[in-house]
Amino acid sequence: MTTHKFEHPLNEKTRIYLRVESLLRQMSHAATKVDTVQYPLFFRPIFDLLEIFEQVQMKAELAKDLEKQRLSYKSWLNVEGVNQDMLQAVLANIDDVHKDLMTAERFGQSLKEDRFLSTIRQRFNLPGGSCCFDLPSLHFWLHQPDENRRRDIEGWLETLQPLTSALHLWLQLTRETGHDKPVIARAGFYQSDAEEANILRLNIPLEYGVYPMISGHKNRFAIKFMSFESGQAYPHDVEFDLSICS
Amino acid sequence: MTTHKFEHPLNEKTRIYLRVESLLRQMSHAATKVDTVQYPLFFRPIFDLLEIFEQVQMKAELAKDLEKQRLSYKSWLNVEGVNQDMLQAVLANIDDVHKDLMTAERFGQSLKEDRFLSTIRQRFNLPGGSCCFDLPSLHFWLHQPDENRRRDIEGWLETLQPLTSALHLWLQLTRETGHDKPVIARAGFYQSDAEEANILRLNIPLEYGVYPMISGHKNRFAIKFMSFESGQAYPHDVEFDLSICS
Repeated sequence: MTTHKFEHPLNEKTRIYLRVESLLRQMSHAATKVDTVQYPLFFRPIFDLLEIFEQVQMKAELAKDLEKQRLSYKSWLNVEGVNQDMLQAVLANIDDVHKDLMTAERFGQSLKEDRFLSTIRQRFNLPGGSCCFDLPSLHFWLHQPDENRRRDIEGWLETLQPLTSALHLWLQLTRETGHDKPVIARAGFYQSDAEEANILRLNIPLEYGVYPMISGHKNRFAIKFMSFESGQAYPHDVEFDLSICS
Repeated sequence: MTTHKFEHPLNEKTRIYLRVESLLRQMSHAATKVDTVQYPLFFRPIFDLLEIFEQVQMKAELAKDLEKQRLSYKSWLNVEGVNQDMLQAVLANIDDVHKDLMTAERFGQSLKEDRFLSTIRQRFNLPGGSCCFDLPSLHFWLHQPDENRRRDIEGWLETLQPLTSALHLWLQLTRETGHDKPVIARAGFYQSDAEEANILRLNIPLEYGVYPMISGHKNRFAIKFMSFESGQAYPHDVEFDLSICS
């Protein structure tokens, strides 16, 4: 059965984490394909990230969240029935990532100070504003030999490594707390409790032709399914898998 | 010798034409690659185009410009030494494209009225704002079978066909009016006259490591070469090819 995987954050912090994850994914995907046509797919996520970092103290937030996960995993030490080797490995991983995070610069600091990136950043949001006459230095850069561009790109990505590792670890451990459970949205509607949860994950069979509209916060949430074709509320039952991750 | 090709518009109208051309190029390039990661490369140009069409009466402008080209080509009819077959072919081409343009809707009208596109348009400019939870209908669409997405994409591109043909023809005929001429920018600086010209085209050897900063309008222009490495004015002579297209 083909399904449509869907994630929804239950608080503002997780909303930003998921946005940043998706921007990092776009960047690293586009990094190998930067050319005179596809370059926006690499550069725009950089500038979107910088905008987010200017608004949110993301480093402190992530460090606090990893610390919380460490404490929660520590409470399983020497508990019978818990695989202590695996637990130790997770704890060591958290330690490493947390240490790298604490010694890292403020997220985006070197990208923000990069002369080349800052000259192109300002025009990138104009509609169609990244033509050669708008951004001559960018177009010169795009005509440079592959190895020069690759060196720059790797340098920029490198500065985000502590963020990338910490965010991926936190999201991975968070996602692992959830377990798929089959549920039914009666007449296209489902609601439930979610104690201190961060992310809802849904697996929705494509055959229904629906997508979810979710409202909620950490303790309670409601899912309303909409028909893609009509744009209206879907009036029939929808069977889907739900996983609540905290 | 590897060169860096560079175009510069000498008036506001041509500036917009070149921006629109570059957005259309991005769209048609991305059209075959729309997936859950690369979709911004297709959708953002659509929304950038809509923003431009809302600000500029581009259809009327293009029709007037094609008409001007027609009159100029007509003046070569029955002139000795001019290949009349080629001339007739160009005139017939202008006629066809002009007719399609005049019967076309206002540029972007159907895209603007498309329910799916308008629901996703509003959030697309938020930094990282095209995650599945921001745009659930987009992510449902991205999970649809290839043929459904291809049908939608072809439909959207189709509505821009009269614009695409007219713009490409006007730009092609305009570019053909210019002829590469080797010139020297003494101490990195070059200026000259350009009677009623629309576009400057430069071919700059990459070895100089420079990009041009151009100021000018239809009658006069100045080119200052900048060093990419230092970001400062380039103090030495630069030999490059220049073509002035009107």
